[in-house]
Amino acid sequence: MSVTFAEGFSAAGVNAAISSNTSKSDLALVVNEGPLDAAAGVFTSNRFCAAPVQWSREAVADGHIKAVVLNSGGANACTGEPGLKQSEATAVHAAEVLGIGDCLEASDIAVCSTGLIGELLPLDNVLSGIDKACEALSDDVDAGMEAATAIMTTDTKPKTVKLEGSGYRIGGMVKGSGMIAPQLATMLCVITTDAVVDAAQLKTVLAAATEQSFDRIDVDGCMSTNDTVLLLASGASGVTPKPQEFSALVHQACASLARQIIGDGEGSSHDIKVSVSGAETEGAALACARAVAGSNLLKCAISGNDPNWGRIVSSLGTVPVDVAAYDAREVTVDINGVRVCEHGGAGADRSEVKMDDREVNIDIDLNQGRQTATVWTDDLTGEYVHINADYES
Amino acid sequence: MSVTFAEGFSAAGVNAAISSNTSKSDLALVVNEGPLDAAAGVFTSNRFCAAPVQWSREAVADGHIKAVVLNSGGANACTGEPGLKQSEATAVHAAEVLGIGDCLEASDIAVCSTGLIGELLPLDNVLSGIDKACEALSDDVDAGMEAATAIMTTDTKPKTVKLEGSGYRIGGMVKGSGMIAPQLATMLCVITTDAVVDAAQLKTVLAAATEQSFDRIDVDGCMSTNDTVLLLASGASGVTPKPQEFSALVHQACASLARQIIGDGEGSSHDIKVSVSGAETEGAALACARAVAGSNLLKCAISGNDPNWGRIVSSLGTVPVDVAAYDAREVTVDINGVRVCEHGGAGADRSEVKMDDREVNIDIDLNQGRQTATVWTDDLTGEYVHINADYES
Repeated sequence: MSVTFAEGFSAAGVNAAISSNTSKSDLALVVNEGPLDAAAGVFTSNRFCAAPVQWSREAVADGHIKAVVLNSGGANACTGEPGLKQSEATAVHAAEVLGIGDCLEASDIAVCSTGLIGELLPLDNVLSGIDKACEALSDDVDAGMEAATAIMTTDTKPKTVKLEGSGYRIGGMVKGSGMIAPQLATMLCVITTDAVVDAAQLKTVLAAATEQSFDRIDVDGCMSTNDTVLLLASGASGVTPKPQEFSALVHQACASLARQIIGDGEGSSHDIKVSVSGAETEGAALACARAVAGSNLLKCAISGNDPNWGRIVSSLGTVPVDVAAYDAREVTVDINGVRVCEHGGAGADRSEVKMDDREVNIDIDLNQGRQTATVWTDDLTGEYVHINADYES
Repeated sequence: MSVTFAEGFSAAGVNAAISSNTSKSDLALVVNEGPLDAAAGVFTSNRFCAAPVQWSREAVADGHIKAVVLNSGGANACTGEPGLKQSEATAVHAAEVLGIGDCLEASDIAVCSTGLIGELLPLDNVLSGIDKACEALSDDVDAGMEAATAIMTTDTKPKTVKLEGSGYRIGGMVKGSGMIAPQLATMLCVITTDAVVDAAQLKTVLAAATEQSFDRIDVDGCMSTNDTVLLLASGASGVTPKPQEFSALVHQACASLARQIIGDGEGSSHDIKVSVSGAETEGAALACARAVAGSNLLKCAISGNDPNWGRIVSSLGTVPVDVAAYDAREVTVDINGVRVCEHGGAGADRSEVKMDDREVNIDIDLNQGRQTATVWTDDLTGEYVHINADYES
């Protein structure tokens, strides 16, 4: 379903022989058939950002994108001028092939890549893959799913979302499983809508939504070179949405896709929700939540079903006073509803905590103010190490 | 050898039945027999710092420490007022037992604990352990080694150092294997010297030495609640050292002990030295080195013998411009002497890198200035996860 759930979008996912896994589809195409072509994007802040990120950031700057070419099997990052030329050639070719009878320019095409850093793509395969994807383009359910599958790398399942607004729809797909950190997870994401919305509104809504979703998940604390989130509007429903409803739905779409990334974190056996309340500011709550969610030791303990609150407070204790004011003697920690830490010391016995479910809820109350923040992460398992020790070596 | 290498120090390590591992010695005593009792300490900056840290920080504030009681088997952290009373009772008892015929006060005794957070110690066992250790006190080689063994937790071997100055000696011991992060590693360390040095000099020298050693190792990015480094001077050699030589030797002792912690990092199969050169400031070099050393993905790759430079530059790319100025297109990366990344892109083929040795050298040149910094870390293995998933659960 995914991106084709919204009217005015067609998609395809094909095997273009880009990935070393020869049996896997590895090129996706998403086309906005209009009538509108409004678009907004959010990109990694990594200073070694990939060629496709540089290309797409430029392409979306004018608020218009007609199609997106996405590939797995290679990140085209740290590939210098030749890499930039590959992203450009990809866009030029897609514009040519899609633009028959239409006037399409390369700058209307966004390009996204994911995979190993530091190697160029097999460009001929990418270009012939675009031809193949153009032939397969369809606005049906399966086509959206095939696109979502083609962008997977270590993901174990496609991740999609569909939401109904008042007379309009939102669809989306995302890939991401490892190299997932705050400040945009390592991921490619395309969200589509048939609502009538202009680029300025898309930009505002997308920035706010990613800040509350993709910016608050953390699989392994590693920021990628290729993160891209695109929001495309076709206007095909003819409906101009109420701004508040539209914003809420885009938030919901991003939150759902972010949650799915955590649910599929590399090698993970638990999803961990770290909620901090009682902070003086949201920033303070967020800093505390991030510190806890980033603890390897805590994540190992959770993988062993050990509700080790000592590793929660010792992480909390690394947050500087000027970032988050709190008194260690007033902090409480609940794990799955059991108050294991009270007044900064031992509370209920940790054996009372049930750890059978995949989801683990860690609720920290700083007892200092009224602000809150939540960050999601995964536990750390031997399988995570295995996946990342053997990835392309 | 360890702390008893310097004249004027006696030590002991005994089994006081504090640790759940009943066959392991778990209480160490180090006594400064004088004539001097000058001392300095550096402690964790964690806001949930343990009771013994609070006690010892106070005790060393006047520049005098006559003995140190150290235990493994329990951190006495996040234990509130009862925990503080335990540290005090430990010091009071040690002062009584050691002070027969002498006038010793509890405030002359430092206390260090390591182990699980959030539980009180079996105080009776600690106190009777002190009696036992007093009887076993000796200034011979074995006694120092027994003390170094008694403070081990997940450490697989005792870690000690001995250095000869011009007419004086320095000895030391440290424990630490997991929960090792910058800003002081999770560790207990006692360094002794028979040089004639006052507390002010010890303080200056120790602060500078820890900043260049224990502050620059990172096993898992997790800061502890119990970190303590103590430097004690007995003056027994009668020799007043040249300040520069003494400072250099204390630096060397700290560097050696820090290096041994990395060599024994939980579950590790490689020691990784991340050196950054060509930075405009030392702070910039250090921030870059820390960012790379903290990457779980890189550490997994190294454990799989994969010289994955993409994970080095993607970590480097997370350092903000205002922290470290550099141009991504001018960065080079050498792994074990092979330039795998040039001008921010691919250099020599990664297959040329030999990864057989335990030590892996990563040399990053920002090509921006003349400042350098080095951080040591370990690789991340399934065994690390195993150790920390099962620790006390």
